[in-house]
Amino acid sequence: MLNQAHQDALAALVGPGGLILDPVDRAAYEVPARYAPGVAAAVVRPATTREVSAVVGYCVRQGLPFVPQGANTGLAEGSTPDAGGQQIVLSLDRLAAPLEIDAADRTATVGAGVRLSSLNAALESYGLFLPIDLGADPSLGGMAATNTGGARFLRYGDMRRHVLGLEVVLADAAGTVLQLSHGLRKDNAAIALRQLFVGGCGAFGVITKVTVEVHHRPRQTAAALLIPPDADAVLPLLQAFEAEAGATLTAFEGMSQAAMARAIEHVPSLSNPFAGGVPDYAVLVELTRTWAPRAGEASLDEVLQQIAGDLLERDDSPLVDALFGPVERMWALRHALSEGLRASGPVVGFDLSFRRRDLARFRREAVAMLEQDFPDYALCDFGHVADGGVHFNLVRTGPADPARLEALREAVLVLAIDGFGASFSGEHGLGRAVQAPYDRFTPRLVQDYSAAVAAVFGTGSASVRLRPPPPI
Amino acid sequence: MLNQAHQDALAALVGPGGLILDPVDRAAYEVPARYAPGVAAAVVRPATTREVSAVVGYCVRQGLPFVPQGANTGLAEGSTPDAGGQQIVLSLDRLAAPLEIDAADRTATVGAGVRLSSLNAALESYGLFLPIDLGADPSLGGMAATNTGGARFLRYGDMRRHVLGLEVVLADAAGTVLQLSHGLRKDNAAIALRQLFVGGCGAFGVITKVTVEVHHRPRQTAAALLIPPDADAVLPLLQAFEAEAGATLTAFEGMSQAAMARAIEHVPSLSNPFAGGVPDYAVLVELTRTWAPRAGEASLDEVLQQIAGDLLERDDSPLVDALFGPVERMWALRHALSEGLRASGPVVGFDLSFRRRDLARFRREAVAMLEQDFPDYALCDFGHVADGGVHFNLVRTGPADPARLEALREAVLVLAIDGFGASFSGEHGLGRAVQAPYDRFTPRLVQDYSAAVAAVFGTGSASVRLRPPPPI
Repeated sequence: MLNQAHQDALAALVGPGGLILDPVDRAAYEVPARYAPGVAAAVVRPATTREVSAVVGYCVRQGLPFVPQGANTGLAEGSTPDAGGQQIVLSLDRLAAPLEIDAADRTATVGAGVRLSSLNAALESYGLFLPIDLGADPSLGGMAATNTGGARFLRYGDMRRHVLGLEVVLADAAGTVLQLSHGLRKDNAAIALRQLFVGGCGAFGVITKVTVEVHHRPRQTAAALLIPPDADAVLPLLQAFEAEAGATLTAFEGMSQAAMARAIEHVPSLSNPFAGGVPDYAVLVELTRTWAPRAGEASLDEVLQQIAGDLLERDDSPLVDALFGPVERMWALRHALSEGLRASGPVVGFDLSFRRRDLARFRREAVAMLEQDFPDYALCDFGHVADGGVHFNLVRTGPADPARLEALREAVLVLAIDGFGASFSGEHGLGRAVQAPYDRFTPRLVQDYSAAVAAVFGTGSASVRLRPPPPI
Repeated sequence: MLNQAHQDALAALVGPGGLILDPVDRAAYEVPARYAPGVAAAVVRPATTREVSAVVGYCVRQGLPFVPQGANTGLAEGSTPDAGGQQIVLSLDRLAAPLEIDAADRTATVGAGVRLSSLNAALESYGLFLPIDLGADPSLGGMAATNTGGARFLRYGDMRRHVLGLEVVLADAAGTVLQLSHGLRKDNAAIALRQLFVGGCGAFGVITKVTVEVHHRPRQTAAALLIPPDADAVLPLLQAFEAEAGATLTAFEGMSQAAMARAIEHVPSLSNPFAGGVPDYAVLVELTRTWAPRAGEASLDEVLQQIAGDLLERDDSPLVDALFGPVERMWALRHALSEGLRASGPVVGFDLSFRRRDLARFRREAVAMLEQDFPDYALCDFGHVADGGVHFNLVRTGPADPARLEALREAVLVLAIDGFGASFSGEHGLGRAVQAPYDRFTPRLVQDYSAAVAAVFGTGSASVRLRPPPPI
């Protein structure tokens, strides 16, 4: 718990309503979306950039560790305090202004605390949206700090591609406010300081304002479930869709039988789309167009059926069956996967990313390794095939055993990273949950330069440690 | 000229063929694509990353300033030596290996000296290409170092969006070689060090190898010349095409009457596409599809005519006329603009970038200012409307006057930057040609942090200076 002097000083900076000490009120800020709750020394909720600057400067001068937090939807334990009770949560949830939309410019400028859903609601009347599709409702500041990706990455890319400007507060004694560009799409008049803060996960300071490029909303959508003959056919299937659907291809989501079966079994609202049993592997494919249907133009449903039909007729086809139906019904299965896994048992999640040519071979080798060494864990993977991202999630089917869990984590990461050059954090960013793999697998030279670059900007926050402490 | 000891040392590192001292042979490395030639102390042409490392390390230890150079097509004087005769050109033109293509992964890994044309020739048989469209044939290392944009930015983005991995040599005494990722599309397992080198223009070291994402080539293309009623209608016209053509929109290039008229008058191979005189302003629009024409599907030409036809029928239309024709003929005018300007007189170029909503207003204010204060300069602007980039080029029609030229540069930049928050280098990067605007207009805080971050990696090259020297 924070001593009285610090409590008084922080309350003076943010007003009494901006400081939360009560354990019950703190809880929402201490419980991460995944992993174990922490204990905060206090929760501080500045309402303006100036207040963020004052709080950060105070914390740095007083040596108080702080963890910036947006909507607390992150999956890498990067936005909650550890169990020690010493870390302050610096919540940005009151930075809900501005929310400015420039439709002609196709940009929006928002406070770091503005939620994705709020931004998209405000954009809807302009026919615009921020096309980053996630299973949560994060804040824009958190999305930038973790460089969020999501299910439509193959068409729209990650947050890095959308961030046109940032306002940040550095973790130095002055709480320096830095303006990093201002909404230009093209700007090479300075080196890319802004890029450090995107995906910086608090190592460089606190994001307080974000300008993003936004896009025209689709006005036509079609989706299908594609059944390839085996996992090796998934990449040729993707290549065929990339060529034939071009830029109208907006999702290509792979789903394993085990993941689908759990969703179908455990999510009551979901009906089984497969008449003849759940296939070994399926792909949700989505096409979209931004324009309204034109006279004489084939509908997207027809285009999708035509592409799939042509593929089904090919010798050595990467497709053995395809199910068509309403878009929501097609997506329902994909959206139910995480809930299905959680409902079926304790989940061990990996946010891996591969060169996409390595996906099938890694999966084959991992399945063999798991069958032999970890038969008490069921692989229930799914992922964003087109960008190489895999939620390589497992469900424990036997008794809990922390040492075995550790061995499992080790075995999967060694195979993925040493064997295939994979990333242990494809789209969830850095945080306590991946500190051990960071310390172990990130090349020492990269750790050293990362820490040295971060040190230029101040002490950073307590949410990420870029260089392991030297051995004692 | 380099002293004998340095000559011997460098020749020993790169072999006698790798060191050019003869003034005639040096000339190609001393003459930039734009601006005045410099004088090199020597040209050193390492053939491998190991040799680059050895040369850079030697230069740093000996205090020899060096300028990295790719294909020497840059437009900001960032790849040639100054007139002092002390700077060594570090040419990467022998780093022509590897040139590896992974079609399934849609990636290519190339030596920094590989030219865009060579990469695209190698990609062609796979139906792939790197979709960055430029008026020159740069090296991939140079494209990454300057974060090149180009005419299809609105659809494909800049080099930053395509670079999936870099190998770099730092400007330190060891010539440290740093591997920054390895071809993953999604990777948030470390902070974004790689992004510093993209657009770093030599401030952080030398790029020796690049992995890029590549795309499916278009198999259908349609283009037209659109005539808006006035400059204010260009943005609504763009918005209409963004909505109606969606992701098939691959170019939207604005051209002023003065620029078009000069091309038509001075480029003999170009025929005038306009029957009724050159309009005040025109837009080249291009649509593409990656797939082959399908049975029953409207052709892209038909789609383009339909979109334009619908617009022409609107009240308060942003379109008054549209010319359709073969794609090459439509592009010919756009491609002839630079040559037309050069042939008509001495060109003063500005590579400005704006929030696109500011384009029309800036142009109006600039035209008024030029008419009043600089009637001896003819504005012949053209640009990439969708991303806010403007080649705000002027042709001198009166006698040369260096002081007046300086006043003109000042007046344009003050209006653009102070008045509209524009960038003085939209897509050409940093170099001697924009050092003065950098020193003057880049916020001091950004200069200080940029210099401090660069210092983490070593001394940098002599091609860019991130912080002005302190006043004496």
